[in-house]
Amino acid sequence: MKTIQVNNQKVLGSVSEAEIKAFRAKAAEAMEKLSKGTGAGNDFLGWLHLPSSITDEFMEDVEATAKTLQERCEYVVAVGIGGSYLGAKAVIEALSDTFAAYKPSKFPKILFAGQNIGEDYLSELKSLLEGKQFGIIVISKSGTTTEPAIAFRLLKEMLEAQVGKAEAAKRIVAVTDAKKGALRTLATAEGYKTFVIPDNVGGRFSVLTPVGLLPIAVAGFDIKKLVAGAQAMEKATAKDADDNIAEIYAMTRNALYTSGKKIEILVNFNPKLHFLGEWWKQLYGESEGKEHKGIFPASVDDTTDLHSMGQWIQEGERTIYETVISVADQQHSMVIPSDAENLDGLNYIAGKHVDEVNKMAELGTQLAHVDGGVPNIHIILPALTEFNLGELIYFFEKACGVSGYILGVNPFNQPGVEAYKKNMFALLNKPGYEAESKAIQSKLK
Amino acid sequence: MKTIQVNNQKVLGSVSEAEIKAFRAKAAEAMEKLSKGTGAGNDFLGWLHLPSSITDEFMEDVEATAKTLQERCEYVVAVGIGGSYLGAKAVIEALSDTFAAYKPSKFPKILFAGQNIGEDYLSELKSLLEGKQFGIIVISKSGTTTEPAIAFRLLKEMLEAQVGKAEAAKRIVAVTDAKKGALRTLATAEGYKTFVIPDNVGGRFSVLTPVGLLPIAVAGFDIKKLVAGAQAMEKATAKDADDNIAEIYAMTRNALYTSGKKIEILVNFNPKLHFLGEWWKQLYGESEGKEHKGIFPASVDDTTDLHSMGQWIQEGERTIYETVISVADQQHSMVIPSDAENLDGLNYIAGKHVDEVNKMAELGTQLAHVDGGVPNIHIILPALTEFNLGELIYFFEKACGVSGYILGVNPFNQPGVEAYKKNMFALLNKPGYEAESKAIQSKLK
Repeated sequence: MKTIQVNNQKVLGSVSEAEIKAFRAKAAEAMEKLSKGTGAGNDFLGWLHLPSSITDEFMEDVEATAKTLQERCEYVVAVGIGGSYLGAKAVIEALSDTFAAYKPSKFPKILFAGQNIGEDYLSELKSLLEGKQFGIIVISKSGTTTEPAIAFRLLKEMLEAQVGKAEAAKRIVAVTDAKKGALRTLATAEGYKTFVIPDNVGGRFSVLTPVGLLPIAVAGFDIKKLVAGAQAMEKATAKDADDNIAEIYAMTRNALYTSGKKIEILVNFNPKLHFLGEWWKQLYGESEGKEHKGIFPASVDDTTDLHSMGQWIQEGERTIYETVISVADQQHSMVIPSDAENLDGLNYIAGKHVDEVNKMAELGTQLAHVDGGVPNIHIILPALTEFNLGELIYFFEKACGVSGYILGVNPFNQPGVEAYKKNMFALLNKPGYEAESKAIQSKLK
Repeated sequence: MKTIQVNNQKVLGSVSEAEIKAFRAKAAEAMEKLSKGTGAGNDFLGWLHLPSSITDEFMEDVEATAKTLQERCEYVVAVGIGGSYLGAKAVIEALSDTFAAYKPSKFPKILFAGQNIGEDYLSELKSLLEGKQFGIIVISKSGTTTEPAIAFRLLKEMLEAQVGKAEAAKRIVAVTDAKKGALRTLATAEGYKTFVIPDNVGGRFSVLTPVGLLPIAVAGFDIKKLVAGAQAMEKATAKDADDNIAEIYAMTRNALYTSGKKIEILVNFNPKLHFLGEWWKQLYGESEGKEHKGIFPASVDDTTDLHSMGQWIQEGERTIYETVISVADQQHSMVIPSDAENLDGLNYIAGKHVDEVNKMAELGTQLAHVDGGVPNIHIILPALTEFNLGELIYFFEKACGVSGYILGVNPFNQPGVEAYKKNMFALLNKPGYEAESKAIQSKLK
């Protein structure tokens, strides 16, 4: 089985091998904090041994549940926000036909809701589902997070009106807390099939729990292979070592940050990885963006964005570096045809696979950006398969834990996410927020 | 007609009124450079009076051409990259049903190609178009830009095979140079309907030329209203004045940049504006990211990204500011239902429109971020209509010209975009690049 590779050699024009190695001791310390559970946020380390602790019995339960939804539904709406949205979205997009929305398919189409507060979004979603066979996977630890709670209330009502309460209960699956919370209570009362979000796994680390696995399975993808990839990477990055790619990535990015590189741009040359970039932005931004520090995570889809952000990357402030995910093998085969007229001048690449040109664009970009003062970390993904994506996911998670500890923050909390919610509740006069309501109203006067 | 508004009062905790006003003279100077054509890049000022110079005759030609494509095609593929992609994409997404891909529609579905070099992307596109009635709008000044040239070669071959050369010629429209270039030559030879990309309008400023207008019209939207909005904004921002919103935005962002705010995040609270953010990133990134300076443009979709980038924005390095686009009115109406059980605790907002909650999330976020040290510029768009989008587009264009001149760069070139292309051509042994090929091969050894 081909495995992902990480190469940091093209950063050496900006930081030296010694400057990277200077983080060796801190990386080892971070690895120990993770394995011994002695660091900050150690009540959220459930992701660390998650892949290897997944049982066959559990996987069969997820797959059987997916099968039930597949048999009953044309559409399945995954209701969730943040980590309860991005992991499933990233994997499904990476594995799906780009134009899947326009094509018939064997499996239900997975739609997403509860990741925004869109009156138009929800209205247009409901108009699509009108008269359709649909189901819901509702994902929320508490069941009271505003965005998914609104979406679920609306969709549940609609589903029950369309197929009756009894059938609706067979098409709703709740992924929630093991014992407490509104959604657990409701699921018990209504008899929904449920899965548990472990207490010690934070949202952005939850894609390999039922949060991600169930929607991915319903979409028709092989979650066993996804987990196998993560297991392989768990093993490969378990021990502190010079060639541990999670440590290499973590050390390199901290060396770059220390040297003044404030923005990391995750680059793909395959548009199917767009949402992997979004998932990665949550993982790193939410883990490290605190105490007025942390690398700012951005992402681009190339070659598309070479014609938009490319100018800035080539010649803007020299405060950025790139991490490029390269997909070695394509799924389809397409050769550039020859043309007798050759007006477009493309005959010099006629007979080549489209991806051969893409790879030269990628290499040409790497050379141009490195020459222009943009260090480059290169990740090679053998192919867009479940196994390789499982590897990539766990790689980024492990590296994130190490990197956050090197930076000196708690990588497993997200205190800043509460600030807007508190204000929103105060503005909406939520019971229990009376004092905050009064304070915010007087501030607005 | 309600018009867009810009409010910069929530930046005043970070920069003072005086610090903004310090750019007043430079803004006036920039306005004069634009209106007199005396600044750098003055051969690319065609966008400045573009809206007011559009004739009825031209609009009718675009609309008649759109009608022909609408009558003949279920799908129309717009082939282009950079400014020949993002403007049309941004406007169509902003005006479309979120789930349009899944729904039947009166007008052809607009797909995009030539904005990447994706072997899987093109294969999956061709598999969708197999046996379908489709047409092509090919957009390229030269006709030889690698990405669109590859896509067009493949799609043209397919279309001719499916419907014959004569019918294909009726379904292909070329938007290209008035006289020269490969695509002009081909269009003449094949008898394609053509439209002209004016010489003095750069790609990122071209959405109000046929580059953007034709795909938008084919998608069924009212391009006359779009242009009317742009015309209104051209007039509103024509003269140097204290209340010129283009100057206010340009001065404010330069004051913020000077004070150490290195990243501007364009924020929407409506996911339909996602690609408006992508268009904006090209406009500002490509215009200002040069000479090792320029604000780094990023974008987020809220409240979705409050659960990913939100933590970083609230508590990361204090080097960012936000420009929030708020859409005042929604297209649909949906009220949060009451629920007897109220397990999710949402009854305190039952009876409210979903968007009322969204607006409180927006206000709550503004307060939280400003309190956290993130200055906030607020743009209010009355609604997602053609008119208001036309206003917004021209507003951002005009402000970009002013802002770039204040920064002291040529906002209308993009020298850095050539670097990767030159390397790619060398790596692919393109005729004419023999010396570069030799140099790059020896570098890679």
